[in-house]
Amino acid sequence: MRSRYTGRELSAVVKSDAYGLGLEAIVPVLADAGCRSFWVNDLGEALRLKAVLPSAVLRETTVYTLFGLGGATPGDFEQAAVVPVLASLDEVWQCGGHARRSGRRMAVAIQLDTGLGRLGLTADDVDRLGGDHLAPLDIRCWVTHLAAFDCPDDPMNDRQRRMLLDLTARLPQAPVSLASSSGVFMGPDWHFDIARIGSALYGVQTSSRWQEGLVPCYRLLAPVLRVADMPAGARVGYRGTTALTRPSRIATLALGYGDGLPQGFVTAGLAFLSGEALPFVGGMAMNLTMVDVTDLLDGAVGPGTQMEILGPRQTIDSLADALGCAPNVLLTQVGAGCAHRYLGTGG
Amino acid sequence: MRSRYTGRELSAVVKSDAYGLGLEAIVPVLADAGCRSFWVNDLGEALRLKAVLPSAVLRETTVYTLFGLGGATPGDFEQAAVVPVLASLDEVWQCGGHARRSGRRMAVAIQLDTGLGRLGLTADDVDRLGGDHLAPLDIRCWVTHLAAFDCPDDPMNDRQRRMLLDLTARLPQAPVSLASSSGVFMGPDWHFDIARIGSALYGVQTSSRWQEGLVPCYRLLAPVLRVADMPAGARVGYRGTTALTRPSRIATLALGYGDGLPQGFVTAGLAFLSGEALPFVGGMAMNLTMVDVTDLLDGAVGPGTQMEILGPRQTIDSLADALGCAPNVLLTQVGAGCAHRYLGTGG
Repeated sequence: MRSRYTGRELSAVVKSDAYGLGLEAIVPVLADAGCRSFWVNDLGEALRLKAVLPSAVLRETTVYTLFGLGGATPGDFEQAAVVPVLASLDEVWQCGGHARRSGRRMAVAIQLDTGLGRLGLTADDVDRLGGDHLAPLDIRCWVTHLAAFDCPDDPMNDRQRRMLLDLTARLPQAPVSLASSSGVFMGPDWHFDIARIGSALYGVQTSSRWQEGLVPCYRLLAPVLRVADMPAGARVGYRGTTALTRPSRIATLALGYGDGLPQGFVTAGLAFLSGEALPFVGGMAMNLTMVDVTDLLDGAVGPGTQMEILGPRQTIDSLADALGCAPNVLLTQVGAGCAHRYLGTGG
Repeated sequence: MRSRYTGRELSAVVKSDAYGLGLEAIVPVLADAGCRSFWVNDLGEALRLKAVLPSAVLRETTVYTLFGLGGATPGDFEQAAVVPVLASLDEVWQCGGHARRSGRRMAVAIQLDTGLGRLGLTADDVDRLGGDHLAPLDIRCWVTHLAAFDCPDDPMNDRQRRMLLDLTARLPQAPVSLASSSGVFMGPDWHFDIARIGSALYGVQTSSRWQEGLVPCYRLLAPVLRVADMPAGARVGYRGTTALTRPSRIATLALGYGDGLPQGFVTAGLAFLSGEALPFVGGMAMNLTMVDVTDLLDGAVGPGTQMEILGPRQTIDSLADALGCAPNVLLTQVGAGCAHRYLGTGG
């Protein structure tokens, strides 16, 4: 991302527990790589984040909350030294009032709703904003998000970009943040001052246009619990889902929807062992799934054998395509309850 | 369940972190209610479970692991005083060997594969079992599971029941466990000695036949972050998913697939506020969803208002029906990363 980005600062989105991968493990790696701005959902996540950074790094670090105040008070944010991305005119007024009462300018970012319709000040809100309301605020950043971030050619993107330029021209000067991962790939017109990199950090493709150079950071392995030989005609799984058409060897994996996989995974996906792709049989239960290993050599699989469920051979992107969901659905949901092992930064 | 069950003992299934609800919070409540047998997936969960019980209760409590040895050794189980539900002939041999070497009988349960094809001894395995192999084992329980547990009238259930009777007649005497929640509702023929109650504990219907008296134990609430008025024709959500057909008031909720919801939830489900059902608009993002609140009275909704997403008005069962997934998919996945509040046993 560094080689592509022409703006001022690359920052990291680690909301939703670093997209389900573990905020406490991932933030220090990003900080070691020089990252000094982070985006989380709320004050609770911001405090978790700050707790894992050494104080020398913390002094240089800005943590933004994308939910705005999210139910906390301006005083809570000031005390925690966390910067809310204000989500509404009401939050601007609250923070302005707090700053005036305390006699200190309050550090905030402000979301602008340029077309997503979700959070931030609309054009009407900006019209209603007198300079008075903003004066007590130390505005660190204007923030917006593309509604068609995943479709670079959608004309909506350019409409949002022009609206952002128009709104910020009428507002006090501050750095502007528009691009998320895919925005960086869309080229310098979209870069502005601060890019918020989420999916790309984790190696997930979130654009309909291929984003070169992203490396999946995840693998999901599941162990075999039992291997059994079954005759042709035997049925396996709930309600006899699969009838075996030949004498089969079936490996039962400790893997199921209790690990965050959608039930459709067993039809859309495969299991991998030493590069061999193996089909699932018998559906998916909460914690168990069965794999047809008949075609493997004798002895290739037994209790304890680890099969690869997600990884370079079967990426989250390809699986999301097959399942018809957003890749980040799988990134955030799969493996939630599983034991995590972190293999280091890999240089 | 007590009023329905005619067998010897009702036990609790708290695998997968108590179906995603939090093993550490739920196990003590069940223990207080008199439960003394628990089923988890593996030794790691068993140790978490034992850590939350007072020693007087622990002495009377049996913890079974449904993954069998699941990669641990017979010695690990003996040391932890946890009972593996052996998943294969190989595990029977391992435990028998361990017991002979140690000179102590080893406590185990043994899974019988009566037709699910997933775990346990097949009829062929039972033929190959000499009495010698079982002699050093203290068999606490024979365990099997119905493949058509959710379809009480499926003839497969009776075939499994008859096979269980046939197999256990050829094996050493020990309590038999066949029924899970739905098996208890199927009547005394299905009760045997120990019932393993999972879904019913949490108030989730898992049978095609209505199970009277189950009370949903869960609620999922999500707070409003912003309320905005938008003109007719405005588009909201990624790629302008929804075009507003009238001037609308839109509430943005802190709720998304990062909270374990499937993306289809926003079309299959509704949000509830004071009994009013409200439709979602604009799709679902990782952490944000929008609700059309135009029809509510002025002032009925503002930042901080909590909407009900799951609860008595919209149960997991009804939503799973609409989404075409197993109810336990939602029970285990939704709310995984959310703050949990436990409201006590409710008498």
